[in-house]
Amino acid sequence: MKIMTFATLAAFSFSVQAQSHSQEPIEVIVPAEGLNTSLVKLGKKLWFDPRLSKSNTISCNSCHNLATGGVDNLPSSIGHGWQIGPINSPTVLNAELNFVQFWNGRAEDLKAQAAGPIENPKEMAFTHTLAIDTIKSIPGYQALFKDAFGKSSFGIDEITVAIAEFEKTLRTPNSPFDLWLTGQSDAISNVQKEGYALFKQKGCTACHSGPLLGGQNYQKMGLVKPFATDNPDEGRKAITGKEFDKFVFKVPTLRNIELTYPYFHDGSVWDLKQAVKTMADIQLGQALSDDEAEKITEFLKSLTGEQPRITLPLLPPSSFDTPRPDVG
Amino acid sequence: MKIMTFATLAAFSFSVQAQSHSQEPIEVIVPAEGLNTSLVKLGKKLWFDPRLSKSNTISCNSCHNLATGGVDNLPSSIGHGWQIGPINSPTVLNAELNFVQFWNGRAEDLKAQAAGPIENPKEMAFTHTLAIDTIKSIPGYQALFKDAFGKSSFGIDEITVAIAEFEKTLRTPNSPFDLWLTGQSDAISNVQKEGYALFKQKGCTACHSGPLLGGQNYQKMGLVKPFATDNPDEGRKAITGKEFDKFVFKVPTLRNIELTYPYFHDGSVWDLKQAVKTMADIQLGQALSDDEAEKITEFLKSLTGEQPRITLPLLPPSSFDTPRPDVG
Repeated sequence: MKIMTFATLAAFSFSVQAQSHSQEPIEVIVPAEGLNTSLVKLGKKLWFDPRLSKSNTISCNSCHNLATGGVDNLPSSIGHGWQIGPINSPTVLNAELNFVQFWNGRAEDLKAQAAGPIENPKEMAFTHTLAIDTIKSIPGYQALFKDAFGKSSFGIDEITVAIAEFEKTLRTPNSPFDLWLTGQSDAISNVQKEGYALFKQKGCTACHSGPLLGGQNYQKMGLVKPFATDNPDEGRKAITGKEFDKFVFKVPTLRNIELTYPYFHDGSVWDLKQAVKTMADIQLGQALSDDEAEKITEFLKSLTGEQPRITLPLLPPSSFDTPRPDVG
Repeated sequence: MKIMTFATLAAFSFSVQAQSHSQEPIEVIVPAEGLNTSLVKLGKKLWFDPRLSKSNTISCNSCHNLATGGVDNLPSSIGHGWQIGPINSPTVLNAELNFVQFWNGRAEDLKAQAAGPIENPKEMAFTHTLAIDTIKSIPGYQALFKDAFGKSSFGIDEITVAIAEFEKTLRTPNSPFDLWLTGQSDAISNVQKEGYALFKQKGCTACHSGPLLGGQNYQKMGLVKPFATDNPDEGRKAITGKEFDKFVFKVPTLRNIELTYPYFHDGSVWDLKQAVKTMADIQLGQALSDDEAEKITEFLKSLTGEQPRITLPLLPPSSFDTPRPDVG
């Protein structure tokens, strides 16, 4: 048997660790590349523009606030006329990496998603026609659309393409966990390493893996035991009409989970440790000890990445022809 | 007679022009100086923090949106429970330079003003006690208060002092008109120069002068002829109880007026040219021609200054002890 020196052993350990990390079920978040800057510039203004709503007070950022992890930290959002939405607003951060959009996957991508809230009567409560008329009536938008699309005419497709392009910039790289994944062994604490080991060992990575730790498939909420909720949403069943899709939702990302409380599609749980325990219980049939849940929670906090630094855009003023806000 | 060289003549002209402009009734907006950066940093987070409202959805920026001239471009703002406010939200831009705050002057400064909306049941609908409890429960705020005040304890005074300090940064210098005032003769168009001459000649500067073109005194809305409005607000009378203060309001600033539609305390007029005509009519008893109103309107557009470029702050997450949003 060959005797290893300490240096050789250390090098060997590092090599094993590096190799091991590349085989982890979780992948790093990388910054977005190759985006169209003219589209992003336009999309950012539209993202913050409350004139895409009937009342001229609700923008994309109202429910997906980039100051607070891309969510509104409410069980469910407040829409036009103070209506309470049916489901918790998911984060826009890293959302491009979801395999489908919305909890029930009814939109195939960010562009398709962006069209929804504008005309949802419980959200922005506008119509696409009025939204287009509004944006067309604002002189300062014309050059931005020309730059982005090479033409002055536009409709809801161009509006949502631009919003989606801006959303694609909203990645959160360099979380402590990702730094650890790429070889910076002290980027996370020992408790977080233990938590990550438990996270894998208990089976959480069966659903929460990949770059998003989620967002790659659907799963029933309450796989092993029923989930107790007052929320009537039946998940995928509303899309497919099939009984076996009842309570089946897209597995949500765990990226930036520390910021995106309250948890679950009904926004019923505010305490991350409680959410971890509930998931282990109803999805995996495992009763976590307090210590185990605490360690997994600490690991989850290592998933908070660098938040996008957004300079608030200056929105071009309306013209006299711009449809007036309708708060009724 | 001494013969001037061209250079001497040019210098003389410049000096005459500079002297002449220094005697104008309007003064330039200068950037804020000497502010406490720790206070500003804290105040900016509080400015954007919806947790200062009962529902956790309304922040200072909701009604004084820095993407849209420091206003919400509504006749009057939407508050808690979709209640419609009683009066048009004035712009926060350059607001420090107002001699008093609010349309009826009931707050002596920005600090006093900032305390109002938080506990106004039609606006953020919180209480100062709950607002303080909320901010105290957020771990990430503690170091910011320590940095700003040198102590960890704080109340509504510290919260509003910080918000006010941030608001003091919100100046809009270098408008075309200010560049013209400081000697850049081509900074405004000839039509705008004619408009400015008319603005003075018609008597507008009697109230709209100084750096804000307003914000220096009170005046009756409807001095010569009554102002037709459905808005029941009686202005200063609500403060003093005196009949002669009925319909007396603080003269609003005309800085960035192009962005701060709709106009007047009732937000009833969307067209700036119409607002100019109405003012001339009911305040000065003058019927402006369409051409005169157009020129004055063009002059007013030269008052749009450089807007503050704000990086959206990242708000510290709540703790489990943070009071939950109450949307009811």
